Amino acid sequence: MDAAEFRRRGKEMVDYVADYLENIEKRQVYPDVEPGYLRSLIPEEAPEEAESYEDVVKDIERVIMPGVTHWHSPYFYAYFPTANSFPSLLADMLCGAIGCIGFSWAASPACTELETVMLDWLGKMLKLPADFLAGTEGRGGGVIQGTASEATLIALLAARSKIIKLIQADHPDRSETDIISKLVAYSSDQAHSSVERAGLIAGVKMKKIPTDNKFSVRGDALQKVLEEDRAAGLIPFFFCATLGTTPSCAFDCITELGPICNAVEIWMHIDAAYAGSAFICPEFRPLLNGIEFADSFNFNPHKWLLVNFDCSAISYVISHLISLQHWQIPLGRRFRSLKMWFVFRMYGLKGLQAYIRKHVGLAKEFESLVRADQRFEISADVVLGLVCFRLKGSNELNETLLKRINNARNIHLVPCQLAGKFVLRFAVCARTTESRHIQEAWCHIRLELNSTELRPSRTDPCSRLYIV
Amino acid sequence: MDAAEFRRRGKEMVDYVADYLENIEKRQVYPDVEPGYLRSLIPEEAPEEAESYEDVVKDIERVIMPGVTHWHSPYFYAYFPTANSFPSLLADMLCGAIGCIGFSWAASPACTELETVMLDWLGKMLKLPADFLAGTEGRGGGVIQGTASEATLIALLAARSKIIKLIQADHPDRSETDIISKLVAYSSDQAHSSVERAGLIAGVKMKKIPTDNKFSVRGDALQKVLEEDRAAGLIPFFFCATLGTTPSCAFDCITELGPICNAVEIWMHIDAAYAGSAFICPEFRPLLNGIEFADSFNFNPHKWLLVNFDCSAISYVISHLISLQHWQIPLGRRFRSLKMWFVFRMYGLKGLQAYIRKHVGLAKEFESLVRADQRFEISADVVLGLVCFRLKGSNELNETLLKRINNARNIHLVPCQLAGKFVLRFAVCARTTESRHIQEAWCHIRLELNSTELRPSRTDPCSRLYIV
Repeated sequence: MDAAEFRRRGKEMVDYVADYLENIEKRQVYPDVEPGYLRSLIPEEAPEEAESYEDVVKDIERVIMPGVTHWHSPYFYAYFPTANSFPSLLADMLCGAIGCIGFSWAASPACTELETVMLDWLGKMLKLPADFLAGTEGRGGGVIQGTASEATLIALLAARSKIIKLIQADHPDRSETDIISKLVAYSSDQAHSSVERAGLIAGVKMKKIPTDNKFSVRGDALQKVLEEDRAAGLIPFFFCATLGTTPSCAFDCITELGPICNAVEIWMHIDAAYAGSAFICPEFRPLLNGIEFADSFNFNPHKWLLVNFDCSAISYVISHLISLQHWQIPLGRRFRSLKMWFVFRMYGLKGLQAYIRKHVGLAKEFESLVRADQRFEISADVVLGLVCFRLKGSNELNETLLKRINNARNIHLVPCQLAGKFVLRFAVCARTTESRHIQEAWCHIRLELNSTELRPSRTDPCSRLYIV
Repeated sequence: MDAAEFRRRGKEMVDYVADYLENIEKRQVYPDVEPGYLRSLIPEEAPEEAESYEDVVKDIERVIMPGVTHWHSPYFYAYFPTANSFPSLLADMLCGAIGCIGFSWAASPACTELETVMLDWLGKMLKLPADFLAGTEGRGGGVIQGTASEATLIALLAARSKIIKLIQADHPDRSETDIISKLVAYSSDQAHSSVERAGLIAGVKMKKIPTDNKFSVRGDALQKVLEEDRAAGLIPFFFCATLGTTPSCAFDCITELGPICNAVEIWMHIDAAYAGSAFICPEFRPLLNGIEFADSFNFNPHKWLLVNFDCSAISYVISHLISLQHWQIPLGRRFRSLKMWFVFRMYGLKGLQAYIRKHVGLAKEFESLVRADQRFEISADVVLGLVCFRLKGSNELNETLLKRINNARNIHLVPCQLAGKFVLRFAVCARTTESRHIQEAWCHIRLELNSTELRPSRTDPCSRLYIV
């Protein structure tokens, strides 16, 4: 394929992409395929001879689309959102064309420099303390990681390295492995599995701190475990606070936890993978109060800030590291800051805030629908764009309901466990979700319930909608 | 930006990308900017109000391009190549639009399944032993990582986990940290820095095995260190062999090393980040002989197989892991296998082989030019697309020459150290490099030399070229 053909095919692909996203709600949100479906649809080996672009492109609908879970459908309410915006798609095309590997300043100065400045823009949008910004003095700063999992690992490794140096400064005879064997890190019992995995990778103990009835880690709970562990001869060195947990979007109480960590020189990392984007709105910024006690802070613009995956932003306090390569696992890196630059400029701060507020409003709308139905209960405070709810009744009942909802394929949800209860998670995800989708989604949920347990009422408007 | 504007802007971007790549050799390959250049060119904060696309796009040439090192210029001979092909760019546009996060089968079945099958296609192209393929029985298989750094780390962690289980099976009382403190891993003294870093992250000792006069690790060198370490009470558990080292594209002798590793149950990982792509050609496949002794094998199609970054392929022997999430650090993943699918089909195996052969041929052409000039010497065997060469003379002389070449900005090279000598690395990188670029590059090198040390000859055709 030469440049001339690329011009033609690229424009066709732009139309295909626009068509896909404009009409995505006509596609079934969750696929019907069974595991292993794809292998039989394509050859067992790569072709010897080149195929034409027509051959390839026609297979998108035949092979790929039947097996896609459409994350950007307004009927997708599973997991957490992942971003998809037009400015981001355009920036990513440019990123692919430049195709530099930004592992050092010289490898492509613009790649390193735009990233540093974009992380500062982001830090200012979130009103992070100045210590987290690079500015022109380079006292802190941020870097793009692929995912929050990598960011947590990097923070944990930085903390591990710091504590080892501290201890060895006083006790030069203590070996690294001896120190590591005594180290202990902490997170919420609601923390994402990647936090536990970071501990496994780094070879350090990782303990879960029990949360309160709001699924939040409080100061006294951490304090208690710290005292026990110190008495047992362990060395606490790292606490990963979560702002916006995966199960229920709960918030650890960092205004209590931060001072405790600071007092005993425990590195406090904040994982706000989903919720972090909301902190650009003044009304949600108080959720980040306590950030001044943290050593590192991470969230995913690729979740809720309209910057396509992958773009996970980590900011550090005062770093003496100069090159980005010391701040991450991989050496190579794409020119990902272009996506941030396009998105921040073409939405503007106000546009981004409006987007966050709209999603939170839609979640509140769904919450009201649930609360108005006596058969259901809300399982956790609705703070941002996630609603945790369930039928009043057994876990089995709720599991059956969820299975029916997902089997019907009209909307897609995933569950969570909260205090032993099976709970349905309803996360507002797609950029194009509107009130009518929320209303429809609620009708689908009630219909699945009505169709099995209760006779549908003739006056229930959902019956009509369902048939449409 | 709505879908209608995206259609228009997307098509403009396709033309911009095509223009950029078609005319890339008119741009200066290495930028003139000084560190910090970019910050003063853009505002200190994100705008409050949305800006227009015109505002953003005009800044590409004003802000970004002056700071780009053009990796896809045919005058770029630094580092190793990174891929950039039109089919890959098209697939990446589709990947962005689908925007699924493939952390489990259900999260997007097509994403998990196409990746598994593409890694099998790749395995067959390389004629990997059947144990490395998933097939329909799932005895082995591959997965896409972001970079070789991650792949090495993952292999090391898998090996660490395996040895701990093995030892604890016999000695249930031995703690994990006690075992880890005795573990020792090995690599070539020519191995990439990421191998050493993997050891640091995993908290295990990592030793470098001295190489022979071809910069290759031989069996006896490993054997010697293994015996010493075992005598000292250490537990050897992992050897990272390099096929195609970063400095000189040297090959560890895995036919000797593999049996040694297998005999004492040391996990042998093969890092063929650059060279791996060449193994699709029958004439280069013998370089991979010994693969049958390996436990894991990694190379980067994003380097030399026309699949844009990031796409680093790791294949394992017999795995009982089902979900991709256990095979990598990040949980989230883009639909990267689309790039492989588009590229493999639109080039065909023959097209990919022709591409590799063309680059090797260009390297051989450059080698001949160097050999024909008595002032220069070749510093390592030219096996694939990398030529290591230097002026006969001091390191200072060669440093000066390289500085002059890079300062002139006509071509871009980076150096390496080989056996204490400062050496210039000439890597054939860009997809569009042709014989005329090689000839020009050689002229530029000689001119820099002539302009300082020797008077240019009136009959030297390089003088003419240089002015053009």
